[in-house]
Amino acid sequence: MPCPIARSLERVGEWWGILILRDAFYGLTRFDEFQKSLAIAPNMLTRRLNALVEAGLLRRRRYSNRPPRYEYVMTERGRDFRPVMQALLAWGNRHFAPEGPSVVIANRETGETADPVLIDRISGRPMNDAVFRIAPGPAANERVLNKLAAANRALENAVPAAAVPTDGKAAVAITRQVASSTRARRAC
Amino acid sequence: MPCPIARSLERVGEWWGILILRDAFYGLTRFDEFQKSLAIAPNMLTRRLNALVEAGLLRRRRYSNRPPRYEYVMTERGRDFRPVMQALLAWGNRHFAPEGPSVVIANRETGETADPVLIDRISGRPMNDAVFRIAPGPAANERVLNKLAAANRALENAVPAAAVPTDGKAAVAITRQVASSTRARRAC
Repeated sequence: MPCPIARSLERVGEWWGILILRDAFYGLTRFDEFQKSLAIAPNMLTRRLNALVEAGLLRRRRYSNRPPRYEYVMTERGRDFRPVMQALLAWGNRHFAPEGPSVVIANRETGETADPVLIDRISGRPMNDAVFRIAPGPAANERVLNKLAAANRALENAVPAAAVPTDGKAAVAITRQVASSTRARRAC
Repeated sequence: MPCPIARSLERVGEWWGILILRDAFYGLTRFDEFQKSLAIAPNMLTRRLNALVEAGLLRRRRYSNRPPRYEYVMTERGRDFRPVMQALLAWGNRHFAPEGPSVVIANRETGETADPVLIDRISGRPMNDAVFRIAPGPAANERVLNKLAAANRALENAVPAAAVPTDGKAAVAITRQVASSTRARRAC
């Protein structure tokens, strides 16, 4: 599957894979530390740790020779996953913390809570700017090309997200407009 | 579970939930469009779409009265998930596209490929700067406080990630150093 999102997900697996990586970012390295933190069945933890090692996100490092004992430390690829985790944390705090955040990312120098925002390093613009669109890369095959062409037609025709109203009457008008543009896309 | 990462994951579920959101970002809205794109069993797709609606990431919108037909459109909460998806895409392209990227995010005005980077809106610093640490928020309970205190001790004691060598001799020395700091953390 050439989609980079799907390929990434294959590597972190589901839920547990990401929570293990979260704990690794918190500094945990040992099997029993992960187990205590996650309250996960040992066979499940073993399987997830092995998958993360196989995917190159963690590596096993021996910390005792007699008896031989290993811990799990982040690779460069694992550390590169940090922005995904931080974006996930910010999203969780924004939408699923009605009682206020339990965990934040703080600037140790100023004590202020960070407000993570994704920008484009090249242009400096925020990545939610409408100027950014999914596009085929150099290795795109025909299936990807077709999918992205349809996707971009859909986005061109769609009502701008922010303009979708929540009240009744206007919604009906816009729903019709969207419905007709969706039919047009299908006919392509 | 007060962890904002865990709470977020509960909402997007696993693999399929995120791939459905990806397709929604691409502009897909209808059941058969998602099914065609994902090659997913209908009962599984129904379950995942309902979960995303229940979590407030998608909402059902009627696009036909006779017969009644619905499509699935992004809510504000769903659209806010975009940075997570974009960070996941960038990570996938960096680490799992040996043949070159199939899909990129392009700037429509310049034609350049975007390079998404997470920064702190307050200070302007990149979020992978060592100045940023996980910290308890206003709603942290005792369990969170204990976990974060241990995590920060571990990170204080740890060898800086970038300094971990890959060659044999130095690695042994550092492994010893890390092992002893880990023991110290346990004794706390």
